[in-house]
Formats: sequence, C-alpha cells, structure tokens
Amino acid sequence: MRALFPGRFQPPHKGHGETIKWILERCDSIIIVIGSAQESHTFQNPLTAGERVEALKLLIEDFSLDYTRVFIIPVPDIFMNKVWTRFVEAFVPRFDVVVTRNPLVRELFEEAGYKVLQQPSFNRALLMGTNIRRMVIEGGEWWRYLTPRVASFLKNIGFEERLKTAIARD
Amino acid sequence: MRALFPGRFQPPHKGHGETIKWILERCDSIIIVIGSAQESHTFQNPLTAGERVEALKLLIEDFSLDYTRVFIIPVPDIFMNKVWTRFVEAFVPRFDVVVTRNPLVRELFEEAGYKVLQQPSFNRALLMGTNIRRMVIEGGEWWRYLTPRVASFLKNIGFEERLKTAIARD
Amino acid sequence: MRALFPGRFQPPHKGHGETIKWILERCDSIIIVIGSAQESHTFQNPLTAGERVEALKLLIEDFSLDYTRVFIIPVPDIFMNKVWTRFVEAFVPRFDVVVTRNPLVRELFEEAGYKVLQQPSFNRALLMGTNIRRMVIEGGEWWRYLTPRVASFLKNIGFEERLKTAIARD
Amino acid sequence: MRALFPGRFQPPHKGHGETIKWILERCDSIIIVIGSAQESHTFQNPLTAGERVEALKLLIEDFSLDYTRVFIIPVPDIFMNKVWTRFVEAFVPRFDVVVTRNPLVRELFEEAGYKVLQQPSFNRALLMGTNIRRMVIEGGEWWRYLTPRVASFLKNIGFEERLKTAIARD
Amino acid sequence: MRALFPGRFQPPHKGHGETIKWILERCDSIIIVIGSAQESHTFQNPLTAGERVEALKLLIEDFSLDYTRVFIIPVPDIFMNKVWTRFVEAFVPRFDVVVTRNPLVRELFEEAGYKVLQQPSFNRALLMGTNIRRMVIEGGEWWRYLTPRVASFLKNIGFEERLKTAIARD
Amino acid sequence: MRALFPGRFQPPHKGHGETIKWILERCDSIIIVIGSAQESHTFQNPLTAGERVEALKLLIEDFSLDYTRVFIIPVPDIFMNKVWTRFVEAFVPRFDVVVTRNPLVRELFEEAGYKVLQQPSFNRALLMGTNIRRMVIEGGEWWRYLTPRVASFLKNIGFEERLKTAIARD
Repeated sequence: MRALFPGRFQPPHKGHGETIKWILERCDSIIIVIGSAQESHTFQNPLTAGERVEALKLLIEDFSLDYTRVFIIPVPDIFMNKVWTRFVEAFVPRFDVVVTRNPLVRELFEEAGYKVLQQPSFNRALLMGTNIRRMVIEGGEWWRYLTPRVASFLKNIGFEERLKTAIARD
Repeated sequence: MRALFPGRFQPPHKGHGETIKWILERCDSIIIVIGSAQESHTFQNPLTAGERVEALKLLIEDFSLDYTRVFIIPVPDIFMNKVWTRFVEAFVPRFDVVVTRNPLVRELFEEAGYKVLQQPSFNRALLMGTNIRRMVIEGGEWWRYLTPRVASFLKNIGFEERLKTAIARD
Repeated sequence: MRALFPGRFQPPHKGHGETIKWILERCDSIIIVIGSAQESHTFQNPLTAGERVEALKLLIEDFSLDYTRVFIIPVPDIFMNKVWTRFVEAFVPRFDVVVTRNPLVRELFEEAGYKVLQQPSFNRALLMGTNIRRMVIEGGEWWRYLTPRVASFLKNIGFEERLKTAIARD
Repeated sequence: MRALFPGRFQPPHKGHGETIKWILERCDSIIIVIGSAQESHTFQNPLTAGERVEALKLLIEDFSLDYTRVFIIPVPDIFMNKVWTRFVEAFVPRFDVVVTRNPLVRELFEEAGYKVLQQPSFNRALLMGTNIRRMVIEGGEWWRYLTPRVASFLKNIGFEERLKTAIARD
Repeated sequence: MRALFPGRFQPPHKGHGETIKWILERCDSIIIVIGSAQESHTFQNPLTAGERVEALKLLIEDFSLDYTRVFIIPVPDIFMNKVWTRFVEAFVPRFDVVVTRNPLVRELFEEAGYKVLQQPSFNRALLMGTNIRRMVIEGGEWWRYLTPRVASFLKNIGFEERLKTAIARD
Repeated sequence: MRALFPGRFQPPHKGHGETIKWILERCDSIIIVIGSAQESHTFQNPLTAGERVEALKLLIEDFSLDYTRVFIIPVPDIFMNKVWTRFVEAFVPRFDVVVTRNPLVRELFEEAGYKVLQQPSFNRALLMGTNIRRMVIEGGEWWRYLTPRVASFLKNIGFEERLKTAIARD
C-alpha cells in the first residue's frame, strides 16, 4: 500500500518526521507532495521547492527512516480546486490512500474517490510551520522543533534572514 | 558533488540506466529531472510524470544502484528558454554539475554558469526514446531496450495501447 | 437586442432570477456569463462553473422564463482588467448591451464602448450571494432566497458541507 | 441520461447536426463542449468560441431540435491530457456518457471512468471541418455542408475572408 | 555602467523623477522596469503599463533628463520569486547594477549576483504611490507630488474616476 | 500622430531601419512592439526580448533617427488572437495607426477599429529575418543586412553560435 502525504513543508519539522514515520509503519511506501512548489521568499512560503526537497531528505535521515520507500515530489499550485487532485495524480506514482489533517484536502481527495486517513496530531503539526516562522521573527528558539541537520541546513541557506526580509518594509 | 541529469524519459530505458550508473560512479548524488512533466498521452510524451517517476525508481533498482543517493524531480515546461534553468533550480536541491548530451540544454546551463559534462553515448541514448516508441507502433521487440521490471510496468499500464491511440485517427 | 449579464452566481438566487426576467422583458435574448469559472470549493466560490450552469438552468425553469432566448457561458478569470472585456467577447455571442450593478464591470465595458444598463436592486442582489453563504455557516434559512429546485439541487450536491469545509481549520 | 459531446466545431456543420439529433433521440439532454475555446483567426480554428456558440444555436434551430435540452459550453485548452477530463467536468453540468469518434478523447474519458459511445459516421463528420475550410480556400461550395442560417451567419461575419487571411503571406 | 530601476509607478511621481536623475548622474544609462505590468483598474494598480510608460516619458521630460539614455520596459508578474530576476533579465538590455529600496527586490537581485544600490529616500518615495492614491480618494491635492504634465495626463485619462471606481461597492 | 510598429525583430535589420525612418517621416512618434518577447534560443527566435531592445536602440542610432520620438516595448505572446490587440494596448502608450505588412496583424487591428498602413517592401523586410538566420547557418555574409553596430553587438553576444546550437542534434 502506498500513501500520499501532501504539505507545504515551510519548513519540514519534527511533526512532519513523526507523520512520515507513522505512515511508513502502516504503508509500504510514501509519496511526500511538496505543494505550492512555485512559491519562495515570502513569509508564508520562505523556502523554494528544491530547498524543501533537500530538507525533507535530511529529516528522513535524522529520523532513521527508510528513504528507499520514499518519493519526494514538488507540485506547483494550479489554482483550481476541482482539478487539483487530478493534477497531483499526474505528477506522482499511483497511490492507495491519502494522509492529511487539512479539511479541504480531505474533501477534494474523497470527492476524487480516495480513502483519506488522518494522522495523529503530532504537536499540532499543521500549524507548527507558521509558529516556527513566527519564532524566527521574534527571536525564539525555532530550531528546537527541527532535527539537527535540518536546522543546520536552514541556517546555512539564510532561512532567518530570508524570513526577516519577507516582512521588512522600506 | 551533486549532478543534475535532465531528460524526458519517454520511457526510461537501459541507456538512461547506464548514464545514471556512470554519474553515480563520479558524483555523490544525482538529481534526475523529468522534463515536460505536464505532458502525457501523446506519441512524443506517452507517459505521465508520475509514471516516469515510478519507472525510474524501478530502473534504478534493476541496475542495483543506490537510491539513497538519488532525487527524482518532475518539472513542467515553462516555454521560455532564458528562464528555464532558473525554473529548474527552484524545483531541485543545489547541484554542482549538469550532465547532458543535448546541445541546447548544455548552452542554457553554461550561460547560467554551470559546468556541463557529456556522458558517453550509451547506445545513442538521446534518440533511443523515439526509436523505442516507434518500435511499439511497428510491433518490434521494444522491451529489449528496457529492464525487465520497467518493461513489465509499462505493459501493465497499457503503454502499447496508449501509443497506438496517440497516432490513431477516426 | 441581446444583453450580457455577468456574475459569479455563488449561488444563483431569486435576485438573479428577477434580473434575468427583467432583462428578457426588455431584450430579445440574454447571455449569462458565469465569471471566475475556474474557482470552486472556497467560501467565496463554493460551486464549480458546471454546478452554477446547472443551477441557473433550474432557476430559469422555476421562474418560467424562456430558455430558448438564453445562453449560459462560463468564463475563467484572466487576471488582467484591461483585457477582460475582450476576453469575455471571445467566449460569447455578439451582444448589444451590458447589465450590471458592479462599478468596475460598468467602467470596463463602457471603456470598451458598450452601453451599460443597471438593473433594479432586487433585494440587494449583488450582496445576496455573500449573505446566503454566511447563512449556511450560521445555520440560517438560506434556502428561502433560492427557488425550490435550486435549493434542492444544492442540498443534494453537498453545498452546506462544502461551505463548512471551506472555513474549517485543523 | 445526459450526454457530453465535445468538438471544435470549426465550423458547426450538418454532420454535427445529425450527431446532436442522434444523441437527443437517445438521451434526455446534451452538453455540447466547444474545445480549444481560446483559439480563433487561424486556418485550424477560424471562429471564436462565441461565434461557434452562436452558430451551434442556429444549427439546432435549423435541425428543429429541442434547445431546452441543450447546454453549449466553451472550454479553453489546458494543454495537459491527464487533467483535461477533470477540467471539462469543472465547466459543465454532471453527465452520464460521452459521445465521440476521437480515439484520444475516448481513451481519456474511459480512463476517467466514463462510458463512451461512438456516433455513426455521418458523412465522415470528424474530418468534415477541415474539408469545409479547404473548400473555402479553393472556392468550392462549402455552404452546402452547412444549414442555411449557419452558412448565412458565417458569410456575414467574414468567415471566407478570415480563412484566406489565415493562410496569407506577405 | 547601466542601472536597472524597478518599480510599479502607480503613478510616476516626483520621487521617481529624483531617483532617475540621481541614477543618471552616476550611470551612463538606466532601464526603468515597470513591474506588475498586467495590472490596472484596481486601487493598488490603477494605471495600465502603457499609461505608466507614457507618464514616465513625460516625467523624464519635465525633469529635463536625457531620454536617449533611458529604456522604459514593462514586465508582467511571474508569481515566482526565485525566477523573477531571470524573467526580468529576459525582457531588458544587460545591466550592471540594480537601484532599489525594496528589501525583497534587493535580496533577490543579490542572490542573482548583482550589486544593489539604495537611492536616497526622496520624500519616502517607496510609499508615496499609496499616499498619492489615497489623497485622490480623500480629495487631497495629489497633483502637487507629480510634475505638471504627468498630473495633466492623469487627469485627462480619468485617473481620479478610476481610483474611485476601484473602491466603490454597489 | 503616433504609430505602432509590431514585429519579432529576429534580428533587427536594415529593412526595419528603413521602416522606422519611413514612419518617423509621417508620424510624430513610434511604438516599436517586440512580439514573442518570452522566446529566445530557438532558430525562429534566437534573441531574448532584452537583446532585441538593445539592438533596436543601436539600429536607431545607426540610422541617425530621433530616439526621443521612440518607444520600444516587449510584449509576450498571449496565444489568443481575439484578445491580442487589447493585450498589446495594455502594454503601450495610446496610438493612432498601425504599420504592418502581416495580413493577420492587419486583420486583427482593423477588427479592433484601428487604421492600418502598409509600409513599402524594403527588401522584402518581413521575410528578411528568416533569410538572415539561414545565412548564419550556411556561412553567408549575414552582417551585410544589418547596420555595423547591430552586427557587432550580435557577434559579441554569440548570435552565430546560438543559432547553430538551436538546430544542432546529438
């Protein structure tokens, strides 16, 4: 059985790692879909899709998960909800089940005929991305919610500066 | 060192396997970029991006290559040559070198400041995709140019019928 | 004389029915343009274009209006105001007059050389869509503002659930 | 039962009229989808979507068919075969069956789970459009393949001149 | 040395004139990039790109600057930050330096390898556009911040009415 | 009176210079529209829009024409003929007349209500671009059809190599 796990991963954090682990305990393989792949350099979406791919690979290694059972696929927005699930299908291998806590994502995949599972709320994973980005702005210890190599990678590519620029005004 | 290897992979064949092997002998990791990701169900591009992802994973396994050193990333066309290399950069992890035999791809990445390597001509790999698709139409032994699991996967998803439909007229 | 009547019709309600009736009393035929046709499954735009086409047909029948004098044409957004009226022209039969209460729509069609009429304010028709959608969320008697068959159709396709999902958070 | 009948209708001719009649004898209602709606002023696609809507309405009247059982919906190209059927679904009312002689259209709708019917070959309807356009260029009696009001409408909007311009060179 | 000066110029005001003068005192030539070129008829972007081109030409003449050292190039949005600088490069002549006070624009061009200069804050130029548009709505003396010919041009094309329509509701 | 002169300018040659001179003798100012602005690095469209802007500026100087009466505006394709003239209008200052020898361009601007003039056939200007590009491939003296500074500029940016790459195969 193969599961699809869609998210924006801004940034990939421990909650995502827990979810991927939870899925790999139940499924043979997982497709991680990086949504809004065209976005970057904003507060809502600071990282490029490629940076998110790289950070997700590090997250998987930090969690000692089996990468040979993983696909990581960036998918740009199509801005048309009715068509979005089919658009995702075009970019990814076949899958049997979708894992999400997002109500709209659940609704759209159920309308498309898929079985949708809801993962446990690992530290309120869905909202954690926003909180981590806010912590960066406010000078909090944002890296505590990330694995060491992901945190290190983000620091090296200037994650903090990019977020601060995103909210800066002249 | 990380290499970028772009192609359309319609379908992924042994020549691609040889090239990926050649790259992994020289680089730490490889990003396989599946171009024209939005295309499918035509003679030029019969397979969806997702089907090509799945077939490339099988190809890597059939060649006993190390998937933990591999990224497979579909990228849709942007129809603007000057911008294309930057567009690819947005979707993939950082890379150091590009591997291609395509003259335009070489030119565009060199203009963007990248070092470009040319792989050996493994059975005229660049043209093999077209030839394999023609063999399907003409009833030739097209599967001989693919690894067993890729050939089997393509048969199961109706590769032959799809190519025949693509050239059919009322 | 043929009139163009553009709107989003989220959902088609009695105010729209009154307007269409008012137009057919003054013109030979009417083109109902369903704008933002690419949108659906949001609070602002819950229904697909196709669902709005179907509901408008029912509305016309519930109002006992003459469908043989009606065109219903969905038009996606082009996100370029200067070009929008020409874009609409490309999708619809020729027309002589535009009927709208929307100030921007009036301005754009007048700049394009059209005569623009303003229909009477049938129960504040322009704002009624938003109010009806709010009533669904708040458990009000939203169906009172729709004709029986439109209300029934919307209930059957899960209009209420879709609106509630659109505003739901994890 | 509702049928979907997709085509480009460049221009709408008697073969289309026969097909619509054939469908209305077997189904309760019909959705005529005008594909490549964004195209016009080329040899392949001389008419705008709106002109095709208007001509189809005249065709239906010339064939004395029941317009109250008809939807005419223009749909622009999405240039992504895998997604196209879902894209069409977003623009049109629900339907139960697709009527087509085009092999790719059949394949795509069958993959999407629809039953597909093939109408009889009314004077080789699929190819007639091209032939009619060639006749215009070569000075043939193209109007014989159209109903009187459609032919008259096309003459009035400059169909012949537009086709001649489309193939003209400096 | 050639400088790139990007902005939205809604509308072109004296602060822009000061900046262009400041640049021409330091560089051989200037490329004025009109961003969000596809936008118009909104409060944020009332003027079309073409109207902004025309107003900028008048501004340059009112400031007695040397137009033979100036390029004015409209560039539509690409909605992809990572790619935007390359997209701009495709539309404009080669340039050596970028002049901006916008933090994101600075970051993106620095990432692309360009030297970025910051012009003096001529009457808080970056924010002046918004203030001028607000003054129009509130009946202030907005024209005082524009040169005479630009103010006159804007009045003639209905700048004030357009802004008032942009914020009007039924 | 202001004239619009659209073309692709691949590359800008003496025939274009003659046409611009001819227009400036009859009109107060000229808008040179660089069409297919998104294209580059192909045989049909080797130069970027920005390179064409720069070459046109040099052409105007080599012809000793008055640049203060000139606008040079790149416009990307919109792939929708019916909408194209309005799209061009959005990008350029107001104009009174269009100058072209292209039959489709003439037809579209006449339909949009413009007066269209046809310039004299300066050395078969419309076809000269293609011929010059062929001469590059065949080793002919292509630079004879260009002014000295344009020819020198093109050589410096690798015009010949780019064209040869565009037609190269593995």
